[in-house]
Amino acid sequence: MSELFDFGKAILEQQPFSVLLGTELNTFEPGTAELSLGVRDELKQQHGFVHGGVVSYLADNALTYAGGSVLGDSVTSEYKINYLRPALGQTLVARARVISAGKKQAVCNCQVVAINEGEERVIAIAQGTITRVD
Amino acid sequence: MSELFDFGKAILEQQPFSVLLGTELNTFEPGTAELSLGVRDELKQQHGFVHGGVVSYLADNALTYAGGSVLGDSVTSEYKINYLRPALGQTLVARARVISAGKKQAVCNCQVVAINEGEERVIAIAQGTITRVD
Amino acid sequence: MSELFDFGKAILEQQPFSVLLGTELNTFEPGTAELSLGVRDELKQQHGFVHGGVVSYLADNALTYAGGSVLGDSVTSEYKINYLRPALGQTLVARARVISAGKKQAVCNCQVVAINEGEERVIAIAQGTITRVD
Amino acid sequence: MSELFDFGKAILEQQPFSVLLGTELNTFEPGTAELSLGVRDELKQQHGFVHGGVVSYLADNALTYAGGSVLGDSVTSEYKINYLRPALGQTLVARARVISAGKKQAVCNCQVVAINEGEERVIAIAQGTITRVD
Repeated sequence: MSELFDFGKAILEQQPFSVLLGTELNTFEPGTAELSLGVRDELKQQHGFVHGGVVSYLADNALTYAGGSVLGDSVTSEYKINYLRPALGQTLVARARVISAGKKQAVCNCQVVAINEGEERVIAIAQGTITRVD
Repeated sequence: MSELFDFGKAILEQQPFSVLLGTELNTFEPGTAELSLGVRDELKQQHGFVHGGVVSYLADNALTYAGGSVLGDSVTSEYKINYLRPALGQTLVARARVISAGKKQAVCNCQVVAINEGEERVIAIAQGTITRVD
Repeated sequence: MSELFDFGKAILEQQPFSVLLGTELNTFEPGTAELSLGVRDELKQQHGFVHGGVVSYLADNALTYAGGSVLGDSVTSEYKINYLRPALGQTLVARARVISAGKKQAVCNCQVVAINEGEERVIAIAQGTITRVD
Repeated sequence: MSELFDFGKAILEQQPFSVLLGTELNTFEPGTAELSLGVRDELKQQHGFVHGGVVSYLADNALTYAGGSVLGDSVTSEYKINYLRPALGQTLVARARVISAGKKQAVCNCQVVAINEGEERVIAIAQGTITRVD
């Protein structure tokens, strides 16, 4: 594993909210990041699907990681998400990548997929701006 | 308390993720909704602020409630959020309202404020589309 | 009329695209801006309504003006727009205001209304980030 | 050329605003659409770049075409755009595709590139919801 990946993993462990949800860092390379999350009942809403807030959190965090992979310590300034399907399955995976980056900001997009009995379906797409923390 | 409010409260209690986070419904009237959340350490990120994912969740849920107040049982189809300031304080409050509604969809916006030692500051604004669940 | 307003008017006259469309600056004060546009056939789409691209242009430009009123010479970095109703009427008016501003960026929102035989209806809302040009 | 392409071309010719700007339909197939626009001075803003409103218009229209390729006659309900670079060059091209579609709505994304002396650069990305007109 690379130094960047170890740095990313350390940041995730320093986010109590990510620890509470059980988020894992799968990939963290210059320009790209992948986070995943095991689905459990306490992450759901009233219809039995994963709560949109969890999907948003994962997309937001993956966007920040993608931007942070080229900017260093960063936060999400803004993003937009379209939910495509109910989040149903055993695992959620968010894959984000940098589309364009300057010194202080990067624009990234992200797909969130749900893995249900081995089958992967895109459940949300997101697009946003990541800003370096000075 | 109105029937609508009781219905809203019951929905919130049926969302395990909202129970996990400790969200409360303050207001739920035709065209408007207010949710709040007590800040605790496990909702934070690595800089000691409330995680953006929590702010997004609260905005998303308040948007759904606002839309649901006129549409009935609903989900968020899409939204966009701009984070304005670090989320610092004891309580987060999300206030959403319907800007325009048809039979199946409503467009709503939302302000999220952080209350820090009695002082209120807007920390995020959001705008999105809520869709009735058939 | 203020110096700021004269500056704003001069910028608009230097935007050939705004001249082509016939945009006028109604208000330009610190934190707020209003632009308007007379509707004519060549701004329409195939259903006889004003083209969404015209509505977007007006919202985008009003957002830039609102941000620019506190930042100086600025551009829109990103925005999101929800179309609420068909754009029908004699005049479109976009009213934007600053929600939060730092030294380099401002987050603004905007309502676009259509005035049809004296009656005003909100036809779109937008929210975005304006960045100072160095 | 296919029937779908001929239909798309006919729609574009019925949009007076697209005729005013000079938009051309390059591709229109199930799930994807490409529009282009020759740059001329009257499409510019005060810094000599193509006005953001033109870039937005082109992205918005390409999103509608992509959605319309699977839904039939459609409008854009909402979209979000991030401007990545100044729009500089001889031609703008917007390429949109469907990410997910139901019977009434499709979520699409779009890249806008500027072609400058033969070199292509991505200048904006957009994501939005297209709705079938009943």
